Amino acid sequence: MNLIESLNQRYASKMMNGTKIPEEKFQTILEAIRLAPTSLGLQPFKVLIVENQALKDKIFEKAAPGQPQIPTCSHLLIFAANRKITRDMLDEYFELIEATRDLPAEKLLAYRNIMNGLVDKSEEQNFNWAARQTYIALGFGLVSAALLGLDSVPIEGFSASVLDELLNLKEQNLGSVTMFALGNRDEEKDYNAKLPKVRKSKEYLFVKL
Amino acid sequence: MNLIESLNQRYASKMMNGTKIPEEKFQTILEAIRLAPTSLGLQPFKVLIVENQALKDKIFEKAAPGQPQIPTCSHLLIFAANRKITRDMLDEYFELIEATRDLPAEKLLAYRNIMNGLVDKSEEQNFNWAARQTYIALGFGLVSAALLGLDSVPIEGFSASVLDELLNLKEQNLGSVTMFALGNRDEEKDYNAKLPKVRKSKEYLFVKL
Repeated sequence: MNLIESLNQRYASKMMNGTKIPEEKFQTILEAIRLAPTSLGLQPFKVLIVENQALKDKIFEKAAPGQPQIPTCSHLLIFAANRKITRDMLDEYFELIEATRDLPAEKLLAYRNIMNGLVDKSEEQNFNWAARQTYIALGFGLVSAALLGLDSVPIEGFSASVLDELLNLKEQNLGSVTMFALGNRDEEKDYNAKLPKVRKSKEYLFVKL
Repeated sequence: MNLIESLNQRYASKMMNGTKIPEEKFQTILEAIRLAPTSLGLQPFKVLIVENQALKDKIFEKAAPGQPQIPTCSHLLIFAANRKITRDMLDEYFELIEATRDLPAEKLLAYRNIMNGLVDKSEEQNFNWAARQTYIALGFGLVSAALLGLDSVPIEGFSASVLDELLNLKEQNLGSVTMFALGNRDEEKDYNAKLPKVRKSKEYLFVKL
């Protein structure tokens, strides 16, 4: 199936049927998320994977009672951004760059100087910036799932503070940003499955300068 | 080519060769961006398209002197998020929903009530939320370009305030968030073209709960 056809067929599944998606497809989605670019290449987040039913139920009950796709999905991903960009984090990142790329010390130093600026910013600025990067990766996950013919839905409607406490995210320098449920739709109970897609027109959305 | 192969081949092109990409591929990328989901479906942004060379040069000189891919790209997209979510914007959106979907008035009202909450939030909260949504669309653009074998690069390193003033974005209730350059790499001068990709390992990025 081609890209645009796949994207037209995907929709925000609000009720899944509890069945598992194939492991190979799930791994492809994770790999696409891993390959997503981020500003300065830092990938300032973790992606938490929830397959355990009791934990999905708990997240649904405590943090996202309006989202019945959570207990019925196959895999729930939680995109959790770093709250603070630390010097340790940058040290680790530069070790990775040096292990991967044969770059002159001068170029590495210039790059490091730009990145050091992040450490001096406030936690709020760091988190806002890191959170934005998770949405690129979410986009990669969404397109991948569509191309693989799987149902998926991004979820912003949850209490981040409740979820962070439930999973001890703050202690890990993380804050939950979005969730992403993957699975197979419940054909009968998913109200959204039969609705036509609502999107602004090309003429509205794009402005040629 | 398959998805993961395409994503492995894409990279942040820092120098393009000034040639145009095929119009059909460009339109496919725009359509993918248009189909990207957003929170509550609002698509609170515009995507500005710059093909004019003089304007690309001006943006490079005034707002993004560190980004030589801007004057050398084929098409520059600017993702500009809405600064304030207004009641008029919601009215327009609900007209679109009603024209597209045959929904019961009760369901529409409940949905509208949730969305009205956005209008009561501050401009800063609105903009931060809207800005995040543009990154999903950016992700869709990035994957599409990779699948189509085009070079592309997301750009955060520019002065948003200078760009906003240059394009009178504030007056249009918009604020620039990211740019996205599409084109064909300059094989010789693009330092990035030959470097291996740096990405955190699967074991680091993903945490199974």
